[in-house]
Amino acid sequence: MMSFKPKRIPIRVGHRYVAILNETSAEKLDVRASERIDLFVGKKELTAIVDITDNKELKDNQIGLFAETWDKLGVTSRNTIKVKVAPKPQADQHIKEKLEGERLTAKEMDIIVKDIVNDDLSDIEMTYFVAGCFTRGLSDRETADLTKAIVKHGGKLTFRHKIVMDKHCIGGVPGNRTTMLVVPMITALGYVMPKTSSRAITSPSGTADTMEVVANVKNDVDTLKKIAKKAGGFITWGGGVDLAAADDKLIRVRYPLKLDPQGMLLASIMAKKYSVSSNNVIIDIPMGDQGKVKTKKEANVLKKRFLRIAKLLGMKMKVVITSADQPVGYGIGPLFEVEDIMKILKNEPGAPEDLKKKSIMLVTELLYLTGKYKFKYQAKKEARAVLETGKAWKQFQKIVKAQGKKRLPKRGEHTFVVKAKKAGTIKSIHNKLIANIARTAGAPQDKGAGIIIHKKIGDIIKKGEPLYTVYTENKTRITYVKKLQYRKAYTIK
Amino acid sequence: MMSFKPKRIPIRVGHRYVAILNETSAEKLDVRASERIDLFVGKKELTAIVDITDNKELKDNQIGLFAETWDKLGVTSRNTIKVKVAPKPQADQHIKEKLEGERLTAKEMDIIVKDIVNDDLSDIEMTYFVAGCFTRGLSDRETADLTKAIVKHGGKLTFRHKIVMDKHCIGGVPGNRTTMLVVPMITALGYVMPKTSSRAITSPSGTADTMEVVANVKNDVDTLKKIAKKAGGFITWGGGVDLAAADDKLIRVRYPLKLDPQGMLLASIMAKKYSVSSNNVIIDIPMGDQGKVKTKKEANVLKKRFLRIAKLLGMKMKVVITSADQPVGYGIGPLFEVEDIMKILKNEPGAPEDLKKKSIMLVTELLYLTGKYKFKYQAKKEARAVLETGKAWKQFQKIVKAQGKKRLPKRGEHTFVVKAKKAGTIKSIHNKLIANIARTAGAPQDKGAGIIIHKKIGDIIKKGEPLYTVYTENKTRITYVKKLQYRKAYTIK
Repeated sequence: MMSFKPKRIPIRVGHRYVAILNETSAEKLDVRASERIDLFVGKKELTAIVDITDNKELKDNQIGLFAETWDKLGVTSRNTIKVKVAPKPQADQHIKEKLEGERLTAKEMDIIVKDIVNDDLSDIEMTYFVAGCFTRGLSDRETADLTKAIVKHGGKLTFRHKIVMDKHCIGGVPGNRTTMLVVPMITALGYVMPKTSSRAITSPSGTADTMEVVANVKNDVDTLKKIAKKAGGFITWGGGVDLAAADDKLIRVRYPLKLDPQGMLLASIMAKKYSVSSNNVIIDIPMGDQGKVKTKKEANVLKKRFLRIAKLLGMKMKVVITSADQPVGYGIGPLFEVEDIMKILKNEPGAPEDLKKKSIMLVTELLYLTGKYKFKYQAKKEARAVLETGKAWKQFQKIVKAQGKKRLPKRGEHTFVVKAKKAGTIKSIHNKLIANIARTAGAPQDKGAGIIIHKKIGDIIKKGEPLYTVYTENKTRITYVKKLQYRKAYTIK
Repeated sequence: MMSFKPKRIPIRVGHRYVAILNETSAEKLDVRASERIDLFVGKKELTAIVDITDNKELKDNQIGLFAETWDKLGVTSRNTIKVKVAPKPQADQHIKEKLEGERLTAKEMDIIVKDIVNDDLSDIEMTYFVAGCFTRGLSDRETADLTKAIVKHGGKLTFRHKIVMDKHCIGGVPGNRTTMLVVPMITALGYVMPKTSSRAITSPSGTADTMEVVANVKNDVDTLKKIAKKAGGFITWGGGVDLAAADDKLIRVRYPLKLDPQGMLLASIMAKKYSVSSNNVIIDIPMGDQGKVKTKKEANVLKKRFLRIAKLLGMKMKVVITSADQPVGYGIGPLFEVEDIMKILKNEPGAPEDLKKKSIMLVTELLYLTGKYKFKYQAKKEARAVLETGKAWKQFQKIVKAQGKKRLPKRGEHTFVVKAKKAGTIKSIHNKLIANIARTAGAPQDKGAGIIIHKKIGDIIKKGEPLYTVYTENKTRITYVKKLQYRKAYTIK
């Protein structure tokens, strides 16, 4: 045990406690950068990660404490801090085992996640864990155990209802905003559906971005409980809810290399469901040349993994494989997607039939999953009715109100219409290019930026008819769009 | 490009340039923690790694610069700093490829090492590289390419001599201090031998620790050049020479999990040889139940890897497989090992025959490797002669003088003699336990602490005769030694 005088380093470094020693003190303590030391002041105790500076910066009897470490210990410069090397986190051994190709037990996974959540692991150690999961893979049991551990060492939202509904789509298809229809439909039927959604990373809009056009999506756990009580459900931004702390920390180290170990992705998805007590879940896997999943075979492998993990978690699950061949609906970008949804909910003319049909299918499957219907057509009838009678629309307004209603923005005032250069039939639509054009137009940051597509695969088109219209809030963005290969978004034959 | 006013964070964080933004600025710049930004002030430009703090700590127009970043840019608080997101380091893609199991080309390996040396990679990225090498392995070509890259982006010591000798032992055997005999013998014969050695990590002494008993071992490159000119060679601490910067940085991220990817270990060894221009190298692989390498098969696999990599680097190499069954020599611990070496060099009675014989064998092989001898016995004759005529002893003194002679310390004054409980023949000696006892006695920090063993395998012993003597500088350490299973160090049958 060595004693030091504290020196405050007037800055917070975020997401960890850091203490700085000079080279001489570090050598005496036999501690290296990124290792941990235990700090003691009076009855307070804190484990901090060590950084090492040269002897000019700190005296041998000084320890530098970053603002959060200083505050957490509640010290003043007159205090003396006792320091000893902290034992290695238990997680280290199991992380090494994973790198060596071993399977981890539930207990070992729990130890790792606990150490992550307690900030007991450095970036280096967390990175090794991600690398181990990436290169060696996670079995279904490991994935279920990781999910449980994430939820155990995070928060959990519970409901008194027996059935808690949820859905997830693996993404990759522009305009595919079924969540904003499924949640009001399901909750209008009296079920609870606490849906957390993500923002766009590389797409023109995530469900959270689109929902944000009409309602507030940054809600903490207590607020969400109140909203669920009022409206039976919500559509909120998952990143704003602090339910899966370990997952957030792992995503941070996955980010630099954009590493997506499949087991970790699945655990991340399942933890979001498990942490809101969902037990009746539908998974949508869009499949096709342009999808994240390319082939039927691949889709079936993923489907089976989902089902096995759900079983291990005690969840009922239905997995549907859908088409990733073209955008769903007409609007792409936050506001335009909202417009599609409103038309469907209000049974207005011009509502996109494909988005409506898909949402009814998803709701049907969810209802049928409960086991309350003898035949699927009965569930389908109910799903269609809740939409067409306007009940879902009422429910949508209720949810929006509970989350905090927003005023609709205007469509971007600058437009660019792409017209057919020849007559024929639409053979294909290039999803990635469409997404890229919408992002270049300003989506999702500019809520009123995006695309309305006028034609779908199989539609017949005349020469000069509009294929799609780009909307931007900022005129120069049209110039950027024109630099893209915007003509290649459609193939006409 | 955004503009900020700099705020000095009065501390150095070592081994990297760090800048801090508040959450709002980071979001505006679309940059995350551990990503890089380019900083511009006047004509100066610097890439820094981003840390993110909350909005209370920094204003939206402020950027926090740690001391080394502040100094490197030479700013004052009146400057304005222009900031843009730096392009991703090229290395990232290749690191990801390695994690995915691909082989890296020489060019790709070079890009990774260059980015490491330039501090362009965060701990997270370097850790992924180590994890990729660990889980996917490195081929011999990749290992050679990594070696070349480490040396290219480090320093290199060159000599006008055609032949530059070197040796390496993979370690694991207490007392095995052949380097301190081989270097004077080889250099006495007119060859250059620039030997860098390591300190103990888990053993009672490394060659650098033992050499440090008689001479200074912390020398920079310029000093080493002078020493080599004067004495034809040196035995210096590799950690004090800044020739393989990339290797040092990789070791730092390998340390927390004690990960030793074989290819990386080999590249680390070979880079030490390659960076001092060695082209005639002998490798010693002690093999046996107690060794790092357990079986003949394992030893042969490693031997072949060494030879193939050497070939790719244009080095002549001989690999010998030796015994790891018991300590070499009598002394264990810095001073006691020096005593053995001096007795051999001075041809004094009581010199350990095994250490002498092994050193002559290594020198013979090195001489024969040059191709200057038709028969090996000729080389052996010369090796023996240089030792027995006292030429090597003279040469040893010359090297010691060139490096800076030290006064010999005294033996630890407190001793503990372990005696045989029965008569019989020595069947085995427990290397790890012997090493542990010597470390507990204070080696290598206390130069006069350690063990002298009195009996070797095959020796006949009477009841009550001493097996080994423990020396300590600090009496309480004897108590600690007595708590170990010191009786189990020898098996008598």
